[in-house]
Amino acid sequence: MNENDRVDRRNFLARSAALTAGVVAGSASAATGSEALPAWSRAPGTPLRAYGTPSKFEEPVKRVVTSGYPTVSPGTGSSLTPLQALEGTITPAGLHFERHHSGVPDIDPKAHRLVIHGLVKRALSFSPATLDRYPMVSRVHFVECAGNSSRNTGPQPLQVTCGTIHGLLSNSEWTGVPLSILLEEAGIDPRATWIYAEGADSAAMSRSVPLDKGMDDAMIALYQNGERIRPEQGYPMRLLLPGYEGNMNVKWLRQLKLTDGPQHTKDETSKYSDLMPDGKSQQFTFVLGVKSTITRPSWGMTMQGPGLYEISGVAWSGAGRITRVEVSADGGATWRDARLSGPTLTKSVTRFRLPWEWNGQAALLQSRATDDKGNVQPGRKAWNALYSPGNRYHNNAIQTWSVKADGSIENVYA
Amino acid sequence: MNENDRVDRRNFLARSAALTAGVVAGSASAATGSEALPAWSRAPGTPLRAYGTPSKFEEPVKRVVTSGYPTVSPGTGSSLTPLQALEGTITPAGLHFERHHSGVPDIDPKAHRLVIHGLVKRALSFSPATLDRYPMVSRVHFVECAGNSSRNTGPQPLQVTCGTIHGLLSNSEWTGVPLSILLEEAGIDPRATWIYAEGADSAAMSRSVPLDKGMDDAMIALYQNGERIRPEQGYPMRLLLPGYEGNMNVKWLRQLKLTDGPQHTKDETSKYSDLMPDGKSQQFTFVLGVKSTITRPSWGMTMQGPGLYEISGVAWSGAGRITRVEVSADGGATWRDARLSGPTLTKSVTRFRLPWEWNGQAALLQSRATDDKGNVQPGRKAWNALYSPGNRYHNNAIQTWSVKADGSIENVYA
Repeated sequence: MNENDRVDRRNFLARSAALTAGVVAGSASAATGSEALPAWSRAPGTPLRAYGTPSKFEEPVKRVVTSGYPTVSPGTGSSLTPLQALEGTITPAGLHFERHHSGVPDIDPKAHRLVIHGLVKRALSFSPATLDRYPMVSRVHFVECAGNSSRNTGPQPLQVTCGTIHGLLSNSEWTGVPLSILLEEAGIDPRATWIYAEGADSAAMSRSVPLDKGMDDAMIALYQNGERIRPEQGYPMRLLLPGYEGNMNVKWLRQLKLTDGPQHTKDETSKYSDLMPDGKSQQFTFVLGVKSTITRPSWGMTMQGPGLYEISGVAWSGAGRITRVEVSADGGATWRDARLSGPTLTKSVTRFRLPWEWNGQAALLQSRATDDKGNVQPGRKAWNALYSPGNRYHNNAIQTWSVKADGSIENVYA
Repeated sequence: MNENDRVDRRNFLARSAALTAGVVAGSASAATGSEALPAWSRAPGTPLRAYGTPSKFEEPVKRVVTSGYPTVSPGTGSSLTPLQALEGTITPAGLHFERHHSGVPDIDPKAHRLVIHGLVKRALSFSPATLDRYPMVSRVHFVECAGNSSRNTGPQPLQVTCGTIHGLLSNSEWTGVPLSILLEEAGIDPRATWIYAEGADSAAMSRSVPLDKGMDDAMIALYQNGERIRPEQGYPMRLLLPGYEGNMNVKWLRQLKLTDGPQHTKDETSKYSDLMPDGKSQQFTFVLGVKSTITRPSWGMTMQGPGLYEISGVAWSGAGRITRVEVSADGGATWRDARLSGPTLTKSVTRFRLPWEWNGQAALLQSRATDDKGNVQPGRKAWNALYSPGNRYHNNAIQTWSVKADGSIENVYA
């Protein structure tokens, strides 16, 4: 058992009288319910299946789809991971967020090629079947859209779920071929300093990536959570740049062209650049900031009376490993260290948890993450001061959930 | 980057001329295919979705369903994870193996209760909503059926996929409440030494579990790979006993009764006991043996000519952490250490990989795992000597794939 993961049992049990486990009265027969067995215990259940799906009772747990042009271009927009309904660190592939600029291409892997060309000694072409013969690595990493949490940059806080605000974030075990191996096989021309990466979608979504990142921990991802990567995440292959803003992790990857500078594509100029206080745009904010949010309790849930609850949330950093998450119940006046579910991995979502005794009074819940590079998640005012009020990208400010005395929960700016 | 996970790039590249990456002739325009764009690059793709599924091109990747009584009781039997088509360590929930004794109950979580009673100070009843307020832990653990790999105990080796032989094995990130917290809340009577665990399926599948295990790393699992546990894996809750044989991890858990001895239920006497050489049955083999199998290359695949391939496989142990996996290409005469994808977690699947240059001649591929308790996976003869020839349970013997000169692959006993 991971030491990080040990529950402070003594501390918890000392206060557990406040918990709502029902004490069973009467006989053991009443205890086990054998006097009135439910329908599902009285008849055979459903047959075995070739591919499973969630329980019908979990139907509400789905992605929130927000398409900017639902009739003209229903494939343009995003869908968000329902963070408030999930636990642990892995995002099931069916609930991984989406952000597409022209829908999801339906790619036949037999016809798909990744071409590496430009400033290389010899241009190379790789089919998915060819890449299957290369050395692979498996690592758990998050992907987060640069526009995540933009809903919390408006003038008024929206009353929506945690996932609707912060759900352009997902975490998967990715398996693929280290890009460095393919670049070395192609032979890097000394003049090369950048890589132009382009997808096979009809938007030809493209970004410029520093060559150094390509030679570091970048991979051509072929598998996601054990199975072939899903269409919405780039089937049959995507570029994975751990810790870098989402759209640089180009999906449906069809070419990598080595160049002597960035290409200033439409996807890194008209979008994904930060509006600064002086009115200028700042380009190329690659590494995502250290960030966290409490997923439970959060908007849409109702407190079930005073007593013990576990506060649970997710933390991540594009710069490295989460080393600390603090939780406040009084809007940041005082903080307590949360327990981190181990192992804490680099550029990966870490789950934090803290038992909390709610006294039935109003409370302001916040979480604040720190990473192994010493970066600390900024408060809302500090983050606002960095940008023009119009900036919508790279929001990693602390989130505040206001717990009311009536048990309802609101999103507030604090 | 995990040190374990570093690819021996130099070693690999020195031999990579044998690889099949296509060298692109002609202009950069030909390289990027812009002269003849495929259909999916010329028109918008499909819309955003609330819950994703795999690509239609991955339709063959599904569980192999083997129901003993397909017409009488289609919910009795098992379905197997297609290990040969997967990579990494996590099993997607839709492909997690199944083993049911009376189908999958369709449980309404609002009506479900877990009752803890018997030799306790006060019997307690827990709804899923109540458990949501308790401290949780998230850990990656495998579940393996005691009958896994029984297909490799018959007189002749079957020519079937790796998953059809060894696929009653899956690995998930489980999140739930440590059982120790609930037992301590109920108050353990000093006479209690065992726990009787029973499911809410109509078979009332039940097993006896030593109390020590319940107080160690057992949990009431509520989430699987981030989302609520799937119906086939016990929705809304299952008992999780890391490293213990699969059916002790009782699904659809409805009661835990503390007792002063094992109950000798039908599910631990008529089944899941080992037939020994002297004709007696051995009961209560809880901890699963150290084990591994090569998933690629394996039966059903064809070698694409001599050259470099990566051998890839999975290793696990019910006793702890995998510390070493060796690979042989000559039927066990010589061995080389494989690379382990880190982090290696206790009672969890570890992925191993090793580049292999196939010279086009016949080869016998084997893998042999070792765990941190010093257990070493036995060869086939050594395992056979432990039991009666009729025993079908707990087979952790070394698997052999025979690669033929024509590139075909067979399952052989060696």
